[in-house]
Amino acid sequence: MRKIVAPKLIDRLADIVGPKGITTDPLEIAPWLADWRGRFQGASPAMVSPANADEVAAVVTLAAAAGVALVPQGGNTSMVGGATPPADGSALILSLRRMNRIRRLSAEDNIAVAEAGVILSNLHDAAAAAGRRFPLSLGSKGSATVGGLASTNAGGTQVLRFGTMRSLVTGLEAVLPDGSRFDGLTALRKDNRGYDLKQLLIGAEGTLGVITAVGLRLYPAVSERAVAWVGLDSPSLALDLLRRLEAGSAEAIESFELIPADSLALVLQHIAGTRAPLAGAHRWHALIEAVGEGAPAFLEQALGQAIADELAQDAVIAANGAQADAFWRIRESISEAERAAGPAVQHDISVAVADMPGFMLSAARTLEAAFPGTSATAFGHLGDGNVHFHVRAPAGVDRARWMAEVGEPASHMVHDLVVAAGGSISAEHGIGQMKLAEFARLGEPGRLGALRAIKRSLDPAGIMNPGKLVPLASGGDAP
Amino acid sequence: MRKIVAPKLIDRLADIVGPKGITTDPLEIAPWLADWRGRFQGASPAMVSPANADEVAAVVTLAAAAGVALVPQGGNTSMVGGATPPADGSALILSLRRMNRIRRLSAEDNIAVAEAGVILSNLHDAAAAAGRRFPLSLGSKGSATVGGLASTNAGGTQVLRFGTMRSLVTGLEAVLPDGSRFDGLTALRKDNRGYDLKQLLIGAEGTLGVITAVGLRLYPAVSERAVAWVGLDSPSLALDLLRRLEAGSAEAIESFELIPADSLALVLQHIAGTRAPLAGAHRWHALIEAVGEGAPAFLEQALGQAIADELAQDAVIAANGAQADAFWRIRESISEAERAAGPAVQHDISVAVADMPGFMLSAARTLEAAFPGTSATAFGHLGDGNVHFHVRAPAGVDRARWMAEVGEPASHMVHDLVVAAGGSISAEHGIGQMKLAEFARLGEPGRLGALRAIKRSLDPAGIMNPGKLVPLASGGDAP
Repeated sequence: MRKIVAPKLIDRLADIVGPKGITTDPLEIAPWLADWRGRFQGASPAMVSPANADEVAAVVTLAAAAGVALVPQGGNTSMVGGATPPADGSALILSLRRMNRIRRLSAEDNIAVAEAGVILSNLHDAAAAAGRRFPLSLGSKGSATVGGLASTNAGGTQVLRFGTMRSLVTGLEAVLPDGSRFDGLTALRKDNRGYDLKQLLIGAEGTLGVITAVGLRLYPAVSERAVAWVGLDSPSLALDLLRRLEAGSAEAIESFELIPADSLALVLQHIAGTRAPLAGAHRWHALIEAVGEGAPAFLEQALGQAIADELAQDAVIAANGAQADAFWRIRESISEAERAAGPAVQHDISVAVADMPGFMLSAARTLEAAFPGTSATAFGHLGDGNVHFHVRAPAGVDRARWMAEVGEPASHMVHDLVVAAGGSISAEHGIGQMKLAEFARLGEPGRLGALRAIKRSLDPAGIMNPGKLVPLASGGDAP
Repeated sequence: MRKIVAPKLIDRLADIVGPKGITTDPLEIAPWLADWRGRFQGASPAMVSPANADEVAAVVTLAAAAGVALVPQGGNTSMVGGATPPADGSALILSLRRMNRIRRLSAEDNIAVAEAGVILSNLHDAAAAAGRRFPLSLGSKGSATVGGLASTNAGGTQVLRFGTMRSLVTGLEAVLPDGSRFDGLTALRKDNRGYDLKQLLIGAEGTLGVITAVGLRLYPAVSERAVAWVGLDSPSLALDLLRRLEAGSAEAIESFELIPADSLALVLQHIAGTRAPLAGAHRWHALIEAVGEGAPAFLEQALGQAIADELAQDAVIAANGAQADAFWRIRESISEAERAAGPAVQHDISVAVADMPGFMLSAARTLEAAFPGTSATAFGHLGDGNVHFHVRAPAGVDRARWMAEVGEPASHMVHDLVVAAGGSISAEHGIGQMKLAEFARLGEPGRLGALRAIKRSLDPAGIMNPGKLVPLASGGDAP
């Protein structure tokens, strides 16, 4: 079934945004209809690309009046299908990519105000040019936009020290679903005028409005940087090592990524040009990045002591930037290597940090016992209590059949274990389309009811990013 | 007009909470009907005091079914009438004071889980006993409860370093207006399951539900502490001094309070036992607290250099705890001294930190020119961009007449200037009852509409803290 969006509406939108701001050419729209992992395929008759917040407000007002849904889109790098339009063609894509100005960047105030469409790596460059840095980074930094990062409360590799986007956003400008403007850009350190709409829009996945600009906290540029690769015997020892490093160095530890031996082996096998950082075999590995004056000396001394104390088994510090990048490339290639190896189900989960080492091991044992032949491993942001927990098929299975017969029940089991541990079934990727059913199955009734009530209150017609996060039961917004 | 709450409902509430959990004795209820500054007088037929979260949920469920409103109350220390019941007697007081257990306090994890009724100074003591501290403090710490502090996103004197309550809350447990439970206590560093209800409840002033317990971040106990009093020539030089101190000491500066000469003079005149910290006369003063290893030596050296560089005129560091307390007593007595001196209108405002020195001076000039004979002064948390801006009457005026003829229009002008500067008319005290009219007058339509929609969605019957923050237009919740 394909719904029809009135051509008249397209004409009126063109009047608002001009010829450069709208396209109905299927070839131009095609790349933005599917998510980058190819899991979701949508359809849309037009992509509207406003040049400024006034145009966004006018577009939303018009769409609201016509009852036509909009799918806000930045770099379209969602891991959960959060930015692809519904398959019935009933919604228009609202691309923020033309709004790519950095309105202000003050090294003195340590603040940047970036329009929603500014690409993360461009923000990194602009901050660096001013002797500052914006300390959030992730694999898709060349495509992901600050509007999308704020809308999904993105995490990345430096959450340990700087928190998620929520901690880095000083202010927001947005257009609400009725077309009204919310101006929360001024960076007030204190403001108690009722419910915090800024916090509500962060992580709302575009379902409560369109973020048009974001105020962001900057930090001093990095003076010294050290990247280490450490061989360890268990996740629990890894957490002990992290806590010791943090206690010894105040704020120098920015990343602490845990990698199991079999993930490393898959990377070495499937990703060209990678090599093992350490000569010996270890059951677990930690990739550690320390930043700041004296960080390399600190890390060298601390890791030497950790080996002497048998907390770690072996360690190497990257001798230069290229070696550091090679260490990081291993970490960032794990998912790709796993995909090359065969079918798997993947989970982005969190529990309390102190509980994670025990949870990882016991959940893996439970899964492997329940689904003989599978391998369950977890890797990632140990210091955030957030790992990517993957259950991989044995060699040679039929993908579609394995996914249905084993993958899905295995996924349910992982999520059940997470909920029993008081954790989250979506630590950093959000709900989008992909986790809707599991969220509906496992969310507490009070929480789900409140989310639905809020969605309905701010977007009664369900025109903002329909079918994501909290689809309304009635109307075009059903999943 | 006094509405009647059915005696049957009182009986059924008594069944839930037991005889210790409810009173209808006017003498027992009386102290909780008015705010501590005596600005608002309410009425209520009963005060319900549940002993645990299950009882709170049962009470709210029953009240929701009966359509009877509840006013959640902790220490009743609101500055804006946020915890006093409506005057028509239609609402019951829901006291959280019996829920005063600290459920957990882990020095290792730097976390405390406190029930809503835990008094702030008791939390301070418990943290200190474990070698930790909870770094939020304010004048009413002997009465204010953690539930109230979270519900109002309280600030205090250490926001400069630690932020408001929002930055210190790791998790929340609450009962929503329909009686359902929200369990967000587990401290997950990453959790992207939709709209952040925790953030929504923080600062909601009890209008979206009842907070029953709070997870709180602890910090290491203070090793060394230094409190200085500095004489300065202008707010702008004060901000320069603060920035220099912060640059030189990383995180040691916890408080930086600005005090004008006439506020100091009023304190010395009206508050027994106070004396000027410095011998000479200065137009402005800063009260500075630095904390951590080496803080006293750092502060002494840095202030010496500031005097040499003519950033400051004179400075003294408290020689002992008693002297430090005496400095703080001056700061905390300003409001009391002003009340003793005569009528005044007071405003709790914020603008961007960098703009505050200029704003304070120009707004004071504008006010004094528009209302001849008045004195306008601002004091307080300069480093947060938050000052208490007071307009004082000339000597000998009639209070009631001055308040109506000068005080009210002067207040409007202060708030108009704040809005024009992109600031907030409520930086830390909230809206409560007192600022309802000004918030309705000055709030952007988009923001006010969104707040009302959210309130209506989660509390359609308007039973949670009626008449505060976002009164619904219809029903018993109108102001």
